[in-house]
Amino acid sequence: MKRIKLIVAYDGTNYNGWQVQPTGVTIEGVLNETLTQLTKEAVTVIGASRTDSGVHALGNIAVFDTNTKIPPEKISYALNQWLPEDIVVQDSCEVPMDFHPRRCESRKTYEYKILNRTFPLPLNRHDCYFTYRKLDVEKMQQAAQYLIGEHDFKSFCSIHSQAETTTRTIYDLTVKKEQDLITIRVTGSGFLYNMVRIVAGTLLQIGTGERSPNEMQEILQAKDRTAAGPTAPAHGLTMIGIKFLANISNKS
Amino acid sequence: MKRIKLIVAYDGTNYNGWQVQPTGVTIEGVLNETLTQLTKEAVTVIGASRTDSGVHALGNIAVFDTNTKIPPEKISYALNQWLPEDIVVQDSCEVPMDFHPRRCESRKTYEYKILNRTFPLPLNRHDCYFTYRKLDVEKMQQAAQYLIGEHDFKSFCSIHSQAETTTRTIYDLTVKKEQDLITIRVTGSGFLYNMVRIVAGTLLQIGTGERSPNEMQEILQAKDRTAAGPTAPAHGLTMIGIKFLANISNKS
Repeated sequence: MKRIKLIVAYDGTNYNGWQVQPTGVTIEGVLNETLTQLTKEAVTVIGASRTDSGVHALGNIAVFDTNTKIPPEKISYALNQWLPEDIVVQDSCEVPMDFHPRRCESRKTYEYKILNRTFPLPLNRHDCYFTYRKLDVEKMQQAAQYLIGEHDFKSFCSIHSQAETTTRTIYDLTVKKEQDLITIRVTGSGFLYNMVRIVAGTLLQIGTGERSPNEMQEILQAKDRTAAGPTAPAHGLTMIGIKFLANISNKS
Repeated sequence: MKRIKLIVAYDGTNYNGWQVQPTGVTIEGVLNETLTQLTKEAVTVIGASRTDSGVHALGNIAVFDTNTKIPPEKISYALNQWLPEDIVVQDSCEVPMDFHPRRCESRKTYEYKILNRTFPLPLNRHDCYFTYRKLDVEKMQQAAQYLIGEHDFKSFCSIHSQAETTTRTIYDLTVKKEQDLITIRVTGSGFLYNMVRIVAGTLLQIGTGERSPNEMQEILQAKDRTAAGPTAPAHGLTMIGIKFLANISNKS
């Protein structure tokens, strides 16, 4: 028996999120079914980020255990023959049997993309949130500074969260503008339920001028979900990648 | 009666191209129907570039005549209320009654996008052609130089073309690489049927090393479609925009 790590990219548009649900097609469900077909074993993957419905990924991580004779680094090729075109495994490798993608210290990076112009662009409609309201990127950048570091992010956590603690560390949070496209990029030790989308929704309010950049500090201190802005729509969010800091010998 | 010019962006994935066909939904057809609904007149648009099935646009041009009382610059807003989300009008303005988008000297720009990596990325699958075969961008750039200028592009013209002459001018043709994405960008006075896709298909052969960069000169001189490479798939192609050089008083 060996444990295999997959790097998984997907267009989340047509999925009911990562995690298997009573109804609806999920990324995890499709991976389980496809790996079961491929290996002839009853495979269940463990995902690093259980992304919401409509959220995309370039580098989410899944691990599973198998006795297959397919060489670990060839599993990606075999799997992609069977997967639908909106889920593509980018890499596969063997990892230690005790490696668990949610119990290992890691750095996760997400991007929230905003298309800011008079009219939407059809080709960007699935992976960018569109707004015609002019956004002040400098103000968004100022506000973002308050969130960097270790903080209690309770104000940025969905009330439906079951997390034991709401303290997290944001290592990096940047807001960049290239032509009409504004990208919020955040790297952290982990994120609370809906946290990146609530951060994006609050930065959007600051960008439009509804709120001032230094209100971000008060919102953080309030430790109250109602203090922050709305949860920005899922389709603007992409899980970029995860770096594991320990407990993994192979490339990650 | 006045003539209105529209700048039209679309995701061509779900359309049978621009031009109205006996069967299938087309961009032109949807614009005609939507404008007819909006103006209560029997509207027929004239398009600048009759893009093929699966080809996208950021800035294709359509003109139509109307007696509507909607101010010209507000037509875009009104139209976008009715159009499907994969067709978005970016601008509308009044132009002289004698302005015809295919009979006016212009510079058209197209981009052909190639994703060049081990595995495809799901979010790019509709607007980038994917190949895992390593492409040598420098060789593609060398080959591209032979095509710049006024030439008989018969080798790069579909045998189904009805063009009277196959001489065209390419003003600019660049091949750029950013990470895994290679973009072929071409600006010309106009293009023959499938010309940009045949140029892309030939540059792909040069990028893989199947053919050498200086073969491009021989291909051009052959004036024979069979001398050039295959027609690259439609979904990698996007009509970027058109600049009109004369016969138009308004912004273009």
